[in-house]
Amino acid sequence: MDSQSGAHILAEGRFLRVLRRSGWEWVERTNTTGAVVIAAITSDRQLVLIDQFRIPLDRRVIELPAGLVGDLAESKDERLVEAARRELLEETGYAARDIECLFDGPSSSGLTNETFTMVLAKDVQKVGCGGGDETEDIRVHVVPLAEIETWLALKREAGFLISPKIYSALYFIARQPAPVAGLENSP
Amino acid sequence: MDSQSGAHILAEGRFLRVLRRSGWEWVERTNTTGAVVIAAITSDRQLVLIDQFRIPLDRRVIELPAGLVGDLAESKDERLVEAARRELLEETGYAARDIECLFDGPSSSGLTNETFTMVLAKDVQKVGCGGGDETEDIRVHVVPLAEIETWLALKREAGFLISPKIYSALYFIARQPAPVAGLENSP
Repeated sequence: MDSQSGAHILAEGRFLRVLRRSGWEWVERTNTTGAVVIAAITSDRQLVLIDQFRIPLDRRVIELPAGLVGDLAESKDERLVEAARRELLEETGYAARDIECLFDGPSSSGLTNETFTMVLAKDVQKVGCGGGDETEDIRVHVVPLAEIETWLALKREAGFLISPKIYSALYFIARQPAPVAGLENSP
Repeated sequence: MDSQSGAHILAEGRFLRVLRRSGWEWVERTNTTGAVVIAAITSDRQLVLIDQFRIPLDRRVIELPAGLVGDLAESKDERLVEAARRELLEETGYAARDIECLFDGPSSSGLTNETFTMVLAKDVQKVGCGGGDETEDIRVHVVPLAEIETWLALKREAGFLISPKIYSALYFIARQPAPVAGLENSP
C-alpha cells in the first residue's frame, strides 16, 4: 500500500499511520494537518500552563495549552488562530484577544511529519473554568514569569515531566517589550 | 499482542512500534532509550547548527546536532554525555570539553514516549570535518549568536524548516554568564 508521497504504509491505526521510504520509518497523524501551542500571558505577567496525564509517557506532564488544528475549509492562518482560541478557552478558561504567530517547526524531525505553530496571546482574561472536554483531566496553573524557573524545578522534583516547548516560548516572551516581559526579574 | 505496560501493540516495524491503550494511540522507538540534543557554542560566541534532508518532512531542516542514545550497560548520564560527544564530532567536526545537562522532556507528549535531553557544550573546538556517517548528508553552520535571529529568518525564507528546539537552547544560552551569552547584542 502506497501513500501519495511514494512511501510504503506499514500500518494504519485510527489516529496514526507508520510509513517507510528509503529504509526510514516515521509516523503521521491520520486526522489533522498540524498542532497549535499557545503561550498565554496575563496582563500581570503570569504564564498560563496546564498539566495532564499523558498515556504515552505514563506520567503527568506540565505543558503549554495546545490542540490539533482541523482540516476545515478556511485559510490556514484562520484555522490556527481559531484553534488556538478554542483550545485555550477549553483547557484553561482563559480568553485571548489578539493572537500572534511566533514560529512553526517540526516536533521531532526524524520521527514524524508533525509540525506545530507556537502563538503568543497577550493579556488573556479568565472567563471560565477550563479543564478540557469530558475526556480530559486538565489542571490549570498560572505562574508569575519572575518565578517560572523555580516553579518548574519544584514540579520536576515532584515527578512531573516538563515540556521543552515551554522554554522555546520563554525565549520569545523574554524578548517581548514590557509589560509582558518579566523574566529579567527572575532569580 | 501486549507490551509490558499493558498496551496493545498495533504494529511493529524495524525501528518503530505503534501502541494503543484506553483508546489512545502512540509511537515508540524499538531500538533506543532516548535522544540527546547538543547546544554547542564556540569561545567566540557562535552556535553550531546543522541542516539535513529529513524524509518524514520531505524538506531540509535546520537543527541542533543530535543523536539517539544507545542502550549500553553504563549509567544513563555517562551514556548521554558519551552520545553527545560522539554525535557532535560525527555531525559537525567539533569536539566538546565539558558537557552540562540543561533539561530533559518529551518531544511530543500526545504522540510518542520519546524524550530528549538538551546539553550545553561550551568552548567547542573544530577538530574534523563533520558531515555525519556515510548514510547522512549533513551541512554544518557556525552562526554568531548576535545574528542568529536574522540568519534563521533568511533560512526560513529559503525554504528550510527550523527546529523549535533551537529556541529552547537559545533561552538557556541567553541566561549563561558572559562570555557565552551574546544574545543581548542581537537586533
